[in-house]
Amino acid sequence: MKKIITVSRQFGSGGRSIAKAVAAKLGYDYYDEALVNEVAEKTGFAPNFIKEQGEYAPNKNRFAYAFSSSVGVPGIMNGLSPSDYLWGVQRDVILSIAEKGNCVIVGRCADSILSDRDDVLNVFVYADKAYRADRIVRLYGETDKAPEKRLDEKDKKRKVNYNHFTGGEWGRAENYHISLNSGALGEETCVEIITKLATEK
Amino acid sequence: MKKIITVSRQFGSGGRSIAKAVAAKLGYDYYDEALVNEVAEKTGFAPNFIKEQGEYAPNKNRFAYAFSSSVGVPGIMNGLSPSDYLWGVQRDVILSIAEKGNCVIVGRCADSILSDRDDVLNVFVYADKAYRADRIVRLYGETDKAPEKRLDEKDKKRKVNYNHFTGGEWGRAENYHISLNSGALGEETCVEIITKLATEK
Repeated sequence: MKKIITVSRQFGSGGRSIAKAVAAKLGYDYYDEALVNEVAEKTGFAPNFIKEQGEYAPNKNRFAYAFSSSVGVPGIMNGLSPSDYLWGVQRDVILSIAEKGNCVIVGRCADSILSDRDDVLNVFVYADKAYRADRIVRLYGETDKAPEKRLDEKDKKRKVNYNHFTGGEWGRAENYHISLNSGALGEETCVEIITKLATEK
Repeated sequence: MKKIITVSRQFGSGGRSIAKAVAAKLGYDYYDEALVNEVAEKTGFAPNFIKEQGEYAPNKNRFAYAFSSSVGVPGIMNGLSPSDYLWGVQRDVILSIAEKGNCVIVGRCADSILSDRDDVLNVFVYADKAYRADRIVRLYGETDKAPEKRLDEKDKKRKVNYNHFTGGEWGRAENYHISLNSGALGEETCVEIITKLATEK
């Protein structure tokens, strides 16, 4: 029986929907935006700023530094860049959520943060680019940018962020207990497999 | 219903045992050494030579070239290095096995070779180093080399070989439909998941 499920995912793969469905099926708490907002409350950062920082690694985002020096929160950041500071706060929030247990956590490097626990199931959800491009246009509509470009940009941000904060390599199978191609297997099958693994033994 | 299952695996992960169990459960043909020997028969290479070539990429193995120039099979290799020539032969064998269907194929980049077909389930099996080290000592006994070193060497060979012949990156989740940590999930659970996915719809 796994008390905590982390879901990392490629943009557009449906990992978030899958995570939500798993949480509903197991009666677990579900965290993504909710988690971000909890962090926001604790730190006083505006939710949108945090959301953006969550996907950028430090030293890659000049805006973050500009923000930090001109509007930054004096005193409480201890000389850390906003994204490093946020990482620490998000880490604490995730650790305390995990302590409560019975939860599904999407993104935020939760797999790496909780790697010391043995009641965690780490899942990676991904899909072919064509599947994801089709899905984001269907769900989020068209924009000026080609869907493939939107995928590349989002994935790159997540990758840079993950690699920076965890020292691991985003998307390598060995970071996770199971990796699922949602496009090939279907969302429902993914939900089924994860739920079954979480409730085993 | 998937007619073909390919299993790529880290050395010591139990991927081969899992593949064998899946084949038995589904009543599918199972190929690994058998495939190698079939290739051997077709080409006249000795099985051990082929087995070794299968894990080396060309240009990395000076022995292969020495072998090729001094003992090589004149005429039939068309100026290819032995490993490139073998790659072509193995590729043909795998394509014809796939044509027959109802089979499980271990290793040999079969996932990449069969990527045009939609009746294939590509599986990657891996595990933590400690689990694999323990397992290879239990199964294959101790050697002069530390088990971790044996793992690193074997994995590196498979990786170099895969990356060379497929242009992809061995061990990245996106190469496969599903990736399973056999140490964390247990071999039996892996067999169950793969069997279920193969027989769906």
